[in-house]
Amino acid sequence: MARITSVDVEDVRFPTSLTADGSDAMNTDADYSAAYVVLRTDATDTLGQPLAGHGLTFTIGRGTDLVAEAARQQAATLVGRDVDELAADMGATYRTLTSDTQLRWLGPEKGVVHLSLAAVLNATWDLVARRAGKPLWRLLADLTPAELVAVADLRYLSDALTADEAVALLEAKESTKAERISHLERTGYPVYTTSAGWLGYDDTTLRRLCQEAVDAGYGHLKLKVGADPEDDVRRLTIAREVIGPDRRLMIDANQVWDVPEAIDRVRSLARFDPLWIEEPTSPDDVLGHAAIRRAVAPVGVATGEHCHNRVMFKQLFQAGAIDYCQLDTGRLASVNEIVAVLLLAAKFGVPVCPHAGGVGLCEMVQHVSVLDYVAVSGDLTDRVTEYVDHLHEHFTDPCVVTDAGAGSGYVLPSLPGYSTQMHPASVARFRFPGGSYWTTEHDAAVAARRGARQPSPAPAAAR
Amino acid sequence: MARITSVDVEDVRFPTSLTADGSDAMNTDADYSAAYVVLRTDATDTLGQPLAGHGLTFTIGRGTDLVAEAARQQAATLVGRDVDELAADMGATYRTLTSDTQLRWLGPEKGVVHLSLAAVLNATWDLVARRAGKPLWRLLADLTPAELVAVADLRYLSDALTADEAVALLEAKESTKAERISHLERTGYPVYTTSAGWLGYDDTTLRRLCQEAVDAGYGHLKLKVGADPEDDVRRLTIAREVIGPDRRLMIDANQVWDVPEAIDRVRSLARFDPLWIEEPTSPDDVLGHAAIRRAVAPVGVATGEHCHNRVMFKQLFQAGAIDYCQLDTGRLASVNEIVAVLLLAAKFGVPVCPHAGGVGLCEMVQHVSVLDYVAVSGDLTDRVTEYVDHLHEHFTDPCVVTDAGAGSGYVLPSLPGYSTQMHPASVARFRFPGGSYWTTEHDAAVAARRGARQPSPAPAAAR
Repeated sequence: MARITSVDVEDVRFPTSLTADGSDAMNTDADYSAAYVVLRTDATDTLGQPLAGHGLTFTIGRGTDLVAEAARQQAATLVGRDVDELAADMGATYRTLTSDTQLRWLGPEKGVVHLSLAAVLNATWDLVARRAGKPLWRLLADLTPAELVAVADLRYLSDALTADEAVALLEAKESTKAERISHLERTGYPVYTTSAGWLGYDDTTLRRLCQEAVDAGYGHLKLKVGADPEDDVRRLTIAREVIGPDRRLMIDANQVWDVPEAIDRVRSLARFDPLWIEEPTSPDDVLGHAAIRRAVAPVGVATGEHCHNRVMFKQLFQAGAIDYCQLDTGRLASVNEIVAVLLLAAKFGVPVCPHAGGVGLCEMVQHVSVLDYVAVSGDLTDRVTEYVDHLHEHFTDPCVVTDAGAGSGYVLPSLPGYSTQMHPASVARFRFPGGSYWTTEHDAAVAARRGARQPSPAPAAAR
Repeated sequence: MARITSVDVEDVRFPTSLTADGSDAMNTDADYSAAYVVLRTDATDTLGQPLAGHGLTFTIGRGTDLVAEAARQQAATLVGRDVDELAADMGATYRTLTSDTQLRWLGPEKGVVHLSLAAVLNATWDLVARRAGKPLWRLLADLTPAELVAVADLRYLSDALTADEAVALLEAKESTKAERISHLERTGYPVYTTSAGWLGYDDTTLRRLCQEAVDAGYGHLKLKVGADPEDDVRRLTIAREVIGPDRRLMIDANQVWDVPEAIDRVRSLARFDPLWIEEPTSPDDVLGHAAIRRAVAPVGVATGEHCHNRVMFKQLFQAGAIDYCQLDTGRLASVNEIVAVLLLAAKFGVPVCPHAGGVGLCEMVQHVSVLDYVAVSGDLTDRVTEYVDHLHEHFTDPCVVTDAGAGSGYVLPSLPGYSTQMHPASVARFRFPGGSYWTTEHDAAVAARRGARQPSPAPAAAR
């Protein structure tokens, strides 16, 4: 017996806007943040520590308080519940947490109340995996096809995928799971890096970081585009000079274009041979992405970090709108909705390359990508998962990237849980607004940055 | 000179769940609520009263606090601003309020931060119309085509509608505005009623309310469906018995079905000759609505109350997914986004029949429908706007429905503003949780209701 005794939800913000980490054509001043949920219990885990579940959703500063408050309200219903009972039917646990009809009005299944639900459910899944003594990917990979499908939220999807089809799809991969696990144990799961390409970095920094990425063994590199067209050409020229013609280059416009503009701008950059254009327009525009994809081929179209739920992904697949599915582990409602999207993607033959970066996303996506390969798609073709080397030091079980395989790869997580626990000292320091960083260090950091006369981030595209 | 001096945002909740008003297959226990924004100034209005702007977004209970807090943060940027300066460029005012990149991450353009933006912008438009001494519909109808298009948010729409096309569309209606205004002054704007059809009402109540609607002169009546199939048949049989074969009957499933299920269920009800099926499935499912529409014709498909922004409406039009556009004045970002949707709808030839009911929505939609007829579509064919006779007593300038025309109609608002001001006494009584109703009356009301042994609302469809 392990009973949830209390819930703590924290608004944690890191001052990344000071260094233009994470800057792009839409998001010029992101402070990487998290609404961070801890579910505490009266039990100990398999390692002899107090059993708790930790989950987060990624945000970029203001408004994290709104998500934290929504998570507090949603998680309150878990206090007093028995962990084993929750774990025995995580489909039902999900339905309970998503069944508040009054909160549903505020989405439905989107925005603040869906982000907060992701944080609460991520904490619940971390708790359940720790209780079982397994990393989350393995807990899920160990489920039978019927059990995994029972976890997935297939509501509103039956015109594209029925539960029976989903079970059959998983059964086809069942007997070869062990081979794929041992393959990944040797090579890691393939990654690419965005660390070099933030829009606020100057050309010298860009060139140096591209070279560092090459030296570190990355076969893929992603750059932000979408502000000034001449800047895009200059930056892509530098990147191609450094990485050469064979490594893969991806570009990301972070939603700044209308559909016709996206088509023109991508065509004008086609000579740099981008593997994909990411977020060319509004994330809600399924038909717009489909039109862009038809117009810019062979450049691929990728989106997903702002795709708010499985119904939107279903349509992106049905409309043939994307070449790469970049689901987000802080935006979809955790494993229950993610597994549904993995199943849809497998049925439609679209590779899943999850969005990461931010804070805590890399820690989560490694579990998702491993699960996808081991149990769902069974395929690594065209798969590459984002990795950004920021803020991992705040986690107790940070992701690790190796170059043991052909390119760089995520090392399979081995500790129990979803790798989502933050160091208590990090939370204490970066809690907003009361953490010690914000009360005693921030003003001095801003002043020092001003004194250093760093080049300021590029302005957002005037719109 | 009129300067905004302060902002008050209140979480106001009415205990409508006690009487099953507003009950449907998805929303079984709605407490009609509002995040209510008041922008106060240092000036007086054209009637000699303190000049203030009032705006709201409609919610259904829990979570209204989240929307109110988001509105507080967004509206804070307006304090100190000059009303005339804001009014002179409402396109820029809109862009300023929507330009917080950190809050944008929590949508974008959807969920809590978009609902709250609607409330803040509705208050701003009310303020600007009161400053001008005009009802909002007339303020907007008096703009030139270029001025009205400059107000509209056309971002992400240029693949469907350019600014030049929009201006041309308005110019074609320019010379005949006055005729249409005087037509509406004689007849009112056509309405239908949903008051009879809530799912939680028993058969006797349903029959009585249908008869009352007929007696009141309504030519259209809407019923909730989507829970038990036999109940749907029985209720529609009653409704048709009372209203006869010639009055129009609409049905509303409030998103409870998957796509194949929606097709089967609507076909099984086709013999009752429904004008439209409303919200047959997820509001995000553009392609699903298109598939349903193809399958259930000649029954029309309607949706929009949960359609979160103009990009989704654009796609509903592009995909030929709907016969009726039910935009919501509390969910779209006020006039700026609504005008964009009216323009799109006019271009695609889809009639706009706004969602109302709730609290304050009827007060707002009358302005929108009048504007649509006078300046945008110029057409009343197949147009009918929702009217529900609930909670109007809380407004200082409540909507009025007359049967002066062929059927019932909204009387054109004549007082300055957006009709969105609530009586201070209503706010004081129903503020949550501190208002006098919630602290001193609610427990007794619940006990009295239990004592009365009312039939309880039908359960939601088991999903």
